[in-house]
Amino acid sequence: MLRTTTCGALRGTDAGKTVTLCGWVDSARDHSGVFFVNLRDRYGITQTVFYSDGSAELFSQVKTLRNEDVIRITGTVLARPEGLINPKMPTGEIEVKAESLEILNRSEVLPFLPSAPELPSDEIRLKNRFLDLRRPEMQRVLRLRHKMTKVMRDYFDELDFLEVETPILGKSTPEGARDYLVPSRIAQGSFYALPQSPQLYKQLLMIAGYDRYMQIARCFRDEDLRADRQPEFTQLDIEMSFIEMEDILEIMSGLVQRLMKDVLGRDLPLPIPRMSWDEAMERFGHDAPDLRFGMELKDVTDIAKEVDFRVFRAVADTAGGRVRGINVKNAADRFSRKDIDSLTAWTAEQFGAKGIVWFKADAEGNLTGSSAKNFTAEQLQKIAQRLQAGPNDLLLFSCGDFLLTCRVLNGLRRKLAAQLKLIDPKEMNFCWVVNFPMFEFSEEENRWVAMHHPFTCPKTEDLQFLESDPGRVRAQAYDLVLNGFEVGGGTIRIHDSATQNRIFSLLGMTREQAREQFGFLLDALAFGAPPHGGLAFGLDRLVMLFAGADNIRDCIAFPKTAKAADLMTGAPGQVDPRQLEELAIKTVLPPKED
Amino acid sequence: MLRTTTCGALRGTDAGKTVTLCGWVDSARDHSGVFFVNLRDRYGITQTVFYSDGSAELFSQVKTLRNEDVIRITGTVLARPEGLINPKMPTGEIEVKAESLEILNRSEVLPFLPSAPELPSDEIRLKNRFLDLRRPEMQRVLRLRHKMTKVMRDYFDELDFLEVETPILGKSTPEGARDYLVPSRIAQGSFYALPQSPQLYKQLLMIAGYDRYMQIARCFRDEDLRADRQPEFTQLDIEMSFIEMEDILEIMSGLVQRLMKDVLGRDLPLPIPRMSWDEAMERFGHDAPDLRFGMELKDVTDIAKEVDFRVFRAVADTAGGRVRGINVKNAADRFSRKDIDSLTAWTAEQFGAKGIVWFKADAEGNLTGSSAKNFTAEQLQKIAQRLQAGPNDLLLFSCGDFLLTCRVLNGLRRKLAAQLKLIDPKEMNFCWVVNFPMFEFSEEENRWVAMHHPFTCPKTEDLQFLESDPGRVRAQAYDLVLNGFEVGGGTIRIHDSATQNRIFSLLGMTREQAREQFGFLLDALAFGAPPHGGLAFGLDRLVMLFAGADNIRDCIAFPKTAKAADLMTGAPGQVDPRQLEELAIKTVLPPKED
Repeated sequence: MLRTTTCGALRGTDAGKTVTLCGWVDSARDHSGVFFVNLRDRYGITQTVFYSDGSAELFSQVKTLRNEDVIRITGTVLARPEGLINPKMPTGEIEVKAESLEILNRSEVLPFLPSAPELPSDEIRLKNRFLDLRRPEMQRVLRLRHKMTKVMRDYFDELDFLEVETPILGKSTPEGARDYLVPSRIAQGSFYALPQSPQLYKQLLMIAGYDRYMQIARCFRDEDLRADRQPEFTQLDIEMSFIEMEDILEIMSGLVQRLMKDVLGRDLPLPIPRMSWDEAMERFGHDAPDLRFGMELKDVTDIAKEVDFRVFRAVADTAGGRVRGINVKNAADRFSRKDIDSLTAWTAEQFGAKGIVWFKADAEGNLTGSSAKNFTAEQLQKIAQRLQAGPNDLLLFSCGDFLLTCRVLNGLRRKLAAQLKLIDPKEMNFCWVVNFPMFEFSEEENRWVAMHHPFTCPKTEDLQFLESDPGRVRAQAYDLVLNGFEVGGGTIRIHDSATQNRIFSLLGMTREQAREQFGFLLDALAFGAPPHGGLAFGLDRLVMLFAGADNIRDCIAFPKTAKAADLMTGAPGQVDPRQLEELAIKTVLPPKED
Repeated sequence: MLRTTTCGALRGTDAGKTVTLCGWVDSARDHSGVFFVNLRDRYGITQTVFYSDGSAELFSQVKTLRNEDVIRITGTVLARPEGLINPKMPTGEIEVKAESLEILNRSEVLPFLPSAPELPSDEIRLKNRFLDLRRPEMQRVLRLRHKMTKVMRDYFDELDFLEVETPILGKSTPEGARDYLVPSRIAQGSFYALPQSPQLYKQLLMIAGYDRYMQIARCFRDEDLRADRQPEFTQLDIEMSFIEMEDILEIMSGLVQRLMKDVLGRDLPLPIPRMSWDEAMERFGHDAPDLRFGMELKDVTDIAKEVDFRVFRAVADTAGGRVRGINVKNAADRFSRKDIDSLTAWTAEQFGAKGIVWFKADAEGNLTGSSAKNFTAEQLQKIAQRLQAGPNDLLLFSCGDFLLTCRVLNGLRRKLAAQLKLIDPKEMNFCWVVNFPMFEFSEEENRWVAMHHPFTCPKTEDLQFLESDPGRVRAQAYDLVLNGFEVGGGTIRIHDSATQNRIFSLLGMTREQAREQFGFLLDALAFGAPPHGGLAFGLDRLVMLFAGADNIRDCIAFPKTAKAADLMTGAPGQVDPRQLEELAIKTVLPPKED
């Protein structure tokens, strides 16, 4: 090794030792006759010191140092005198008196300094990712990511899971998101697809008797990207045989507990709370409820049916119409009419809400507001009671069909909690949401689509409604929610080909289409498939939440932009026409506009 | 869980317990009144027994069982009487007297039985991979693969390496093998490439200060496949900063020792032997020498210069011409003239050899053979001495340029060792080969090409020959060889942009091309790159050698054929024309022949 120790290792007890350190110049300061160089590597920072009364050559050499030069220093460890100890640095008890200096590599003037507190633009950071990754915060997150995957692998190894690698070059299937395609050179005109998940392979591994499978797997979706999505992402992928939902929840809860302990040093009491999809939607308006604060949704449809107020009454009288509200505690005086108008505009824009009805509770707890005149005192009191209104509370109501009121009130709830700082940023709040609907009706495609995926097993007692009332069928499905984010989920799978065929048919596939797309799965199910199920966690998001990071991009070493580009390498890029010729493909670009 | 224990767990001490087992019917035998069902899962096989004097319903149910049905049995563990203990089965001390039986899933008649000793064709195996993977041998290999990667991750984690995931959607580069391309939908006309290795990303991580990186990484090469190649393969990928070759060799040797101990339970004494590329080529004719047997190459060019025998003399007198031979000990009587003729034909076909010269040593050690008459007794004796010929030895000689004699004699050496069973199949023989040439001249491209890759650092003392005599420059490169297979290798990298530019230029790239392709690397090298180097092991091959398997395909859960097809899923396959339209590409197939 070029060094005897790292820049994070030396302590007071090392005083007197001769050491060699390598690293980057984090700072270099000339204190008339004494030159201090802070040397940085992944492990920490060590202060080194050069004296002008030592070697003149050495001193003139050190004066040429610039930030981010890579150097090697040999010297003696000196204990710092009492008053000069820096308790903020792990190496703050010592400094190294330099006796020789080797410049391993000079750095040109940098586009930005990794040690600077202010960040440059996202574009500059991504273009110079090798510099951005030098920032201590990026190193902290990637170290935490390593630790999390290590804990995951250890945990599942102890439980006899096998990590099995599944293919990246797979087959395109029409269900689900858009595939990335890879043209085949050998079978010209044919294409591989990059996997959206190892779903079918892991089911085949169960059918092959592997019993317990895990993989930290790369997955791909060619979708228009939102802020927290990447074209390639990583998931912790799990599958087990001869189990039921309870077993998966227990094993995954144990993992979460272990991660909390080993990665964050925090205790997580088990069991993790659990609620049904119905309850989550009723109480929080969302299937990944943020339980770090209250402000639960309350239904007042029954009251709305009795009032003269047209906005409430018309909705309440419609089949499926709902009137629901939230109570923003002790916030009435913080929201002017104008503030509420802008909230209303926001819900209209985001969710298509037609409006918000609001009340403020006065010092006695009586509801006031522009709509209040349309209600009797008794009606107002009922509403106040239902929402447990107290002095200075702000009540906000949404009217419409169930899902609209869910979207509007979930949106308001989260927005207001952030705005009013109701959330402890250190809290890690987990819950399981179970019993999802099996299908949702897609207006766009005018058919039922699988809410999780078409391999999900319906609840046994709901199988009878499969053809007659698909909307009523619940799935053996479960999601883990952390701080209002879905970190992952899974299902018990169908393990017989007859049920699988019923589902395919309900999703609008003909027998022939099902065979064409999933023949190998149907075959496999016929040759002795065990009951099985599994789950996947989105690793990038889980790392983000454990790291307390702001976005997923900061949790990935080499991420892509919202346009799926790598600004550093320039991918995707042009290729040699001969490459396309070998693949028997041609690009057909629309004519450029002037 | 649907079971209380697995099929591999019960022992004599469990007698009397009530247990529930799940698994596959491995065999079902009716012994008039007693029905034995061997139940199999990943963990083992347990014998269960049904008596006709028990429940009639149960007995009639068990009679319907077929191989590979998935069932669940509850019963009582019985100790087998002394004489009926089966010492070959870990569960052979017990059987389970069944009290209830649930058929979880029936199996249709199978294309082949996983428990059958004879294997079906490769095609049937691959098409029904979910059945092939049920075979105990496949399960053993995939379990060993899991264990090996677990040991690797544990080892490097203990040494403070961070596992960092690098992108799969990258940029195409013209150096190296053919890339798999992925058309971009958002940037139409542009393409991603799947990585041939994480080479540049891991170098960038070093430049970013990550110090010690590891990854078990998926890599891709679109090449015409040989028997032991797959279009996607996995490598253990390593990179370190502030190190020299010795450090890498030491750390990787430690890993190999740990793998031998933890996976195979065998001690590997360190250090692993080491030889230079020159020595390997001189002594074995190959840069991945198989050291499990002797038969080393001996040079007789000096003797050949003095003989009248035209075949030797003409080559010996040519610049660069070499005459070299091997001694096949005690084998003269096992090779007829015809056998030697067919060896000769084989070397002609495989390596373009013009012929083989052979001698046999008689009982006194004197050389005989059709060419012997062209030599004096003294010359024959010199040759015999040089090759340490003893009674009944067979000597085979190849003449030509250095690399031809290497290829021919390495080929013969390996072929004859296998044929004569000179190799102990249990032996695990490791060696390091170091000091590779930096470049080889490509006749095809009429230019120098990098033997490893263009980021390799030449040996400091050879840098002076870079432009004047590239063939003389040796690289700071090293390969690990196991049983005559290269299991991996690496290099110390160039860490300054000036040297990197010299290498690019020597490889025929203009400044502009270098910037276009590798601008981000050249930038990164200018901003404080530390000295660094690394290595990669081919995981699939390493698993094959540790498992004692015959081919790489058996070490991958879902492999592809030599035509890069997945016979089970049918990948690559046809896609919807709308998918291509969105990607702005079109297939241009050559017209079909009739």
